[in-house]
Amino acid sequence: MTTFSAISAQLEGQAIEVPSWAYGNSGTRFKVFGSPGTPRTVEEKIADAAKVNEFTGLAPLVSLHIPWDQVDDFAALRRYAEDHGIGLGTINSNTFQDDDYKLGALTHTDPRIRQKAIDHHFACIDVMDQTGSRDLKIWLAEGTNYPGQGDMRGRQDRLAESLATIYDRIGDDQRLVLEYKFFEPAFYHTDVPDWGTSYVQVAALGDKAYVCLDTGHHAPGTNIEFIVAQLLRLGKLGSFDFNSRFYADDDLIVGAADPFQLFRILYEVIRGGGYGPDSGVAFMLDQCHNIEKKIPGQIRSVLNVQEMTARALLVDAGALEKAQADGDVLLANEIFMDAFYTDVRADLAAWREERGLPANPLKAFLASGYQDQIETDRVGGTQAGWN
Amino acid sequence: MTTFSAISAQLEGQAIEVPSWAYGNSGTRFKVFGSPGTPRTVEEKIADAAKVNEFTGLAPLVSLHIPWDQVDDFAALRRYAEDHGIGLGTINSNTFQDDDYKLGALTHTDPRIRQKAIDHHFACIDVMDQTGSRDLKIWLAEGTNYPGQGDMRGRQDRLAESLATIYDRIGDDQRLVLEYKFFEPAFYHTDVPDWGTSYVQVAALGDKAYVCLDTGHHAPGTNIEFIVAQLLRLGKLGSFDFNSRFYADDDLIVGAADPFQLFRILYEVIRGGGYGPDSGVAFMLDQCHNIEKKIPGQIRSVLNVQEMTARALLVDAGALEKAQADGDVLLANEIFMDAFYTDVRADLAAWREERGLPANPLKAFLASGYQDQIETDRVGGTQAGWN
Amino acid sequence: MTTFSAISAQLEGQAIEVPSWAYGNSGTRFKVFGSPGTPRTVEEKIADAAKVNEFTGLAPLVSLHIPWDQVDDFAALRRYAEDHGIGLGTINSNTFQDDDYKLGALTHTDPRIRQKAIDHHFACIDVMDQTGSRDLKIWLAEGTNYPGQGDMRGRQDRLAESLATIYDRIGDDQRLVLEYKFFEPAFYHTDVPDWGTSYVQVAALGDKAYVCLDTGHHAPGTNIEFIVAQLLRLGKLGSFDFNSRFYADDDLIVGAADPFQLFRILYEVIRGGGYGPDSGVAFMLDQCHNIEKKIPGQIRSVLNVQEMTARALLVDAGALEKAQADGDVLLANEIFMDAFYTDVRADLAAWREERGLPANPLKAFLASGYQDQIETDRVGGTQAGWN
Amino acid sequence: MTTFSAISAQLEGQAIEVPSWAYGNSGTRFKVFGSPGTPRTVEEKIADAAKVNEFTGLAPLVSLHIPWDQVDDFAALRRYAEDHGIGLGTINSNTFQDDDYKLGALTHTDPRIRQKAIDHHFACIDVMDQTGSRDLKIWLAEGTNYPGQGDMRGRQDRLAESLATIYDRIGDDQRLVLEYKFFEPAFYHTDVPDWGTSYVQVAALGDKAYVCLDTGHHAPGTNIEFIVAQLLRLGKLGSFDFNSRFYADDDLIVGAADPFQLFRILYEVIRGGGYGPDSGVAFMLDQCHNIEKKIPGQIRSVLNVQEMTARALLVDAGALEKAQADGDVLLANEIFMDAFYTDVRADLAAWREERGLPANPLKAFLASGYQDQIETDRVGGTQAGWN
Repeated sequence: MTTFSAISAQLEGQAIEVPSWAYGNSGTRFKVFGSPGTPRTVEEKIADAAKVNEFTGLAPLVSLHIPWDQVDDFAALRRYAEDHGIGLGTINSNTFQDDDYKLGALTHTDPRIRQKAIDHHFACIDVMDQTGSRDLKIWLAEGTNYPGQGDMRGRQDRLAESLATIYDRIGDDQRLVLEYKFFEPAFYHTDVPDWGTSYVQVAALGDKAYVCLDTGHHAPGTNIEFIVAQLLRLGKLGSFDFNSRFYADDDLIVGAADPFQLFRILYEVIRGGGYGPDSGVAFMLDQCHNIEKKIPGQIRSVLNVQEMTARALLVDAGALEKAQADGDVLLANEIFMDAFYTDVRADLAAWREERGLPANPLKAFLASGYQDQIETDRVGGTQAGWN
Repeated sequence: MTTFSAISAQLEGQAIEVPSWAYGNSGTRFKVFGSPGTPRTVEEKIADAAKVNEFTGLAPLVSLHIPWDQVDDFAALRRYAEDHGIGLGTINSNTFQDDDYKLGALTHTDPRIRQKAIDHHFACIDVMDQTGSRDLKIWLAEGTNYPGQGDMRGRQDRLAESLATIYDRIGDDQRLVLEYKFFEPAFYHTDVPDWGTSYVQVAALGDKAYVCLDTGHHAPGTNIEFIVAQLLRLGKLGSFDFNSRFYADDDLIVGAADPFQLFRILYEVIRGGGYGPDSGVAFMLDQCHNIEKKIPGQIRSVLNVQEMTARALLVDAGALEKAQADGDVLLANEIFMDAFYTDVRADLAAWREERGLPANPLKAFLASGYQDQIETDRVGGTQAGWN
Repeated sequence: MTTFSAISAQLEGQAIEVPSWAYGNSGTRFKVFGSPGTPRTVEEKIADAAKVNEFTGLAPLVSLHIPWDQVDDFAALRRYAEDHGIGLGTINSNTFQDDDYKLGALTHTDPRIRQKAIDHHFACIDVMDQTGSRDLKIWLAEGTNYPGQGDMRGRQDRLAESLATIYDRIGDDQRLVLEYKFFEPAFYHTDVPDWGTSYVQVAALGDKAYVCLDTGHHAPGTNIEFIVAQLLRLGKLGSFDFNSRFYADDDLIVGAADPFQLFRILYEVIRGGGYGPDSGVAFMLDQCHNIEKKIPGQIRSVLNVQEMTARALLVDAGALEKAQADGDVLLANEIFMDAFYTDVRADLAAWREERGLPANPLKAFLASGYQDQIETDRVGGTQAGWN
Repeated sequence: MTTFSAISAQLEGQAIEVPSWAYGNSGTRFKVFGSPGTPRTVEEKIADAAKVNEFTGLAPLVSLHIPWDQVDDFAALRRYAEDHGIGLGTINSNTFQDDDYKLGALTHTDPRIRQKAIDHHFACIDVMDQTGSRDLKIWLAEGTNYPGQGDMRGRQDRLAESLATIYDRIGDDQRLVLEYKFFEPAFYHTDVPDWGTSYVQVAALGDKAYVCLDTGHHAPGTNIEFIVAQLLRLGKLGSFDFNSRFYADDDLIVGAADPFQLFRILYEVIRGGGYGPDSGVAFMLDQCHNIEKKIPGQIRSVLNVQEMTARALLVDAGALEKAQADGDVLLANEIFMDAFYTDVRADLAAWREERGLPANPLKAFLASGYQDQIETDRVGGTQAGWN
């Protein structure tokens, strides 16, 4: 098997975007539990996100959600982030919380509402121009709840038209990334339910349009790493929304539900050229820390991605290729599992220390007093959440 | 096949409980859309529920949720309902919205929190004494999100103890009904995830404890009518929460997603002795009208149940039994499908008119002006929802 | 609602291909139960298939599977079929039963085995030239059982190359149709697991390549009618393999598990231009009658498709479009359901009689004595099955 | 965390039963691929099974399937096994391959067929008396394919009666173990589809009746370790059928699809008292090596169970309990994951060597020449399979 020292250089520069909303409150339709220390402002979210990067060296960008993170002066916000050692990343639009969007936004039958949703994306592009963000991420929370409620095909056509209008506004160095989701919040049909639909839509747009793969947005039993391989083969994998799930879109800490699946996904990313600074694939988190502490939850998440990346890099590609060519099913599987079963945690701790990072970022964060401080300081105001 | 006239008497007295919360706003974790005319008070919910009964003759009871429907004087509320022609039905407890219950209620490791949750159920029993309700329904929204977070077996033991304490307080003419749910709001494990767990818990309690089957609370591919047959065989089917779903617990209008499944369920109810005034099985709705109008949504729901009940009653039991005994797979299936495929709507319209009900309850309701009136009248105040 | 007389002309000419293998024995990995009267030869399968058409007028073509239906003289077989009143339809290839294909065929790492699989498809095209078949259907039963066993991306590339080689041989009036399947017989990954993959592969081939949608080949919860709408929108829906399922690829009688789903699928077919003689969409059955009688099973199947087609044609398109545009969720759903709930069986019986067909094809077949005769006559020999 | 040395004694005496049928050919309904060296006789299967024990020290028993392993003299077979260093374990009955059982066996409407199936189980008990087996395992491959085909409730009643008759014949030191399965080979309903049904049936029988949990027999998303905890709590977990799956009952090598799930299951086994010589819980494999070599496949399987057992034993129970009591979600999860992420392979290799076993059992087996020898020797005859 490949040794850790042989892959250690490849771990350099791994960058994971953290979502601003992970630092705010979230929950289920039944209840959003608040927690002490939750940010009240975008700036406080960014300050928290910066801590994840400070202790792990893995999270140099924070992703924003409009309008949740709307501010008057995004240039100032960018400087604020940079002062905290991080940058502003992907801009996420929102077409699911305005009353007008009850039955659709970019797909709505009413041209006025479609235009309103398009205008919102134009505004997001304006934000990108100020924040220096590369990606506009569109998650379409659109669909229908009852058979017959909508014309699925007509909606698909209107979606294509709306996206084309938005795409025309995308700058030369910017990208449009279209996320798909199996179900929720619509229950009967979703307008972009699978990678195929997202692919077909972005392929029709052009070279600056890509697919976003959220690891929690698939039917049970779906082989997600196959989709990763396919999208990389087609040159259309734009970004990941990492999280994990047991049944629906649980938005749990990435790697928590099935670490072996995360390993397999990362293996295909690496094998397909999706890893590394020039790959063009953004690694993002999209998670909810409903019951656990949020900053530690984010630290755990980026560490999980790093750890499984290291294990995936350890796969002995040459030996694997030979076993595959020989049709030696058990040996090929063993070579693959050998990397997964290797405990890289001590090596990663040493690797961190060499780079001036704490060996155990979570423990170091907990010892830093930051959590206590924000729990003490952040009294009053309205805790940030999904609104 | 059996004729409609032969079954028409069996349709008499069908009673479906409607949930008070169906008349309030509901949504997903992403957004709760409000709608004009939504009740602000328990009384307004009851007034709306009474309309469903007025136009269909099918919904003589409204089920309450505590604390959402907490009032100072439940005896007065009961009179209010009776003045509107309906009664108060099942009392539903709530152990998922208090901050103390973030990590559990009846299963919590902390005896103080368990006692608080038990006390809440005692309070619910007090309400039942005033409302004349028979059933205390417990849905345990408890579980864990991460492996290792809780001791699943210890939680099961504590649950048994908590339930036993509550059960001791149940009156002679009252029942405890325990609902199971596959997942949500907990994502890794749920403390009562399946009928087996609910059955084991209620069987340990005694003769006044039963299982509640919510049709949306199962894994994909689960044969729900088998569970109905099994619970009736064991004498432990207490009540239904009817709704329908495509993937998760969508809480859509019952029969909307898979009318044939509803037919099969009702067939097993009838075949197993669960239908009729003396069966002891409560038919309830548990639905969310997130995007559709609420009173019409409820009317549609009770009509769907009635319509599939009528079709299920049409199955020619004698012919079916013979075909089954003969091992004639296709004939048995055909006899079964024959009833399902029969359009009973015209017969039901006539049946209604004979009983002084409108032939088309939905159309009659829409023509009644009630919806317009509440949309006009109910201005100001806070629309009711899940809080 | 539209009336039956208004749609009756549209029911003319509906043509459903029946699969030759439905008349042979089939089963599960645990057991194949034989049944009296099962064909021993291709000719006997065709004779049985012809009965389905004789009694229903719906099944003018029988689809063949090579090598199960290999004969020396396909031109003679074609005449044999025509003498029985039917034609030979789609040719299905088989790359899953030769020992060489244990680890792959068109995707295999060994060029010799790939060429062997390609040659098999060339042979199938030769058959098509003799039978006059339009479609070569390729179901790739290829994939891997264990992570690491194969290079999923390399397999995809080899598949593309193999398909291109086959496609080059396809005649001007012929088509290549690529079927996708979620899982089975491979368990970890399947090389064409979803519509997206099939679409991407056939789009790369050219205008004579299409997707085949088997209704049983999806993950639980998948909205199949959405895929129908999407593929029709993309101009790439080539054919259906109709059947039904409760959980996996059960291959039950189409419409048996969820008649409402079949209705929804057929509605999208019609709405998207996939219905009718010029649509280019082939309606095929792909079913297994493991325990029920086979010819009656096929008759039931084509009747189910016809019946749900009739109901789907009954949808009042104008009223539906208006309700959708008005955002009237309940009314749109009601208009849709109204067609589904309409019992068209009596109208269809009359329609048949007008055309010289038996009002009740199944009863007429059972009364015809054919089943008894083949059970008496077909003694000795080897009953046809999947080999 | 607990150290390996602290748990090493607990690894002593771990015993996993291997199934005789894993050494024969298996496949899917589409194809059974043969492989060189496959046993032709029960004795050859036992000889192969003995090799697994010889190289791992983990597999002292081989489980038999009647009639696949029927011999004239089971006492002689027992001596044969003992001469090879292993014993004969669980006896598995078969009620799914006789033509009489097409529509049911223990549940059949025909008392003659029920009695035939009961008699088969009596014969199995006679075998147990000769082999010294403790457990009679009943997997009911019974159910229906079409709604209406059978009377689900009547079948449940007949099943109870049949099982009671069999149970009466069970010896004082013998047990009846009832396996449940979600679906397959029946597709609409299965007579024992879930743990609840199996539990209800065995609880009605008495103290010598238990549930068998096959890890591949659940709906997607089912929390299997919860069921383990529940059955241990109820004192009714009799045995495991270990294997793994991605979607259906794939029967892959245990731990291959989701090693973390296997870890969680084994943790609950240990925590619930199901591990160790006096626990009464039998660890069995039930797998199919369709494409991989069979003896190495079995060696890999028992090693996977041992490895995940070791990891599960490493969980720091005291620290975990404290974190759970403190409500520290992330810390509890971390303690749990810490054990899972620990690579125990080097420690286990040393542990083996201390006990005179090869450090790497798979490598040692491959080097032993046994596989080559059987591939050379076993020419002619009929390779064993599922018949």
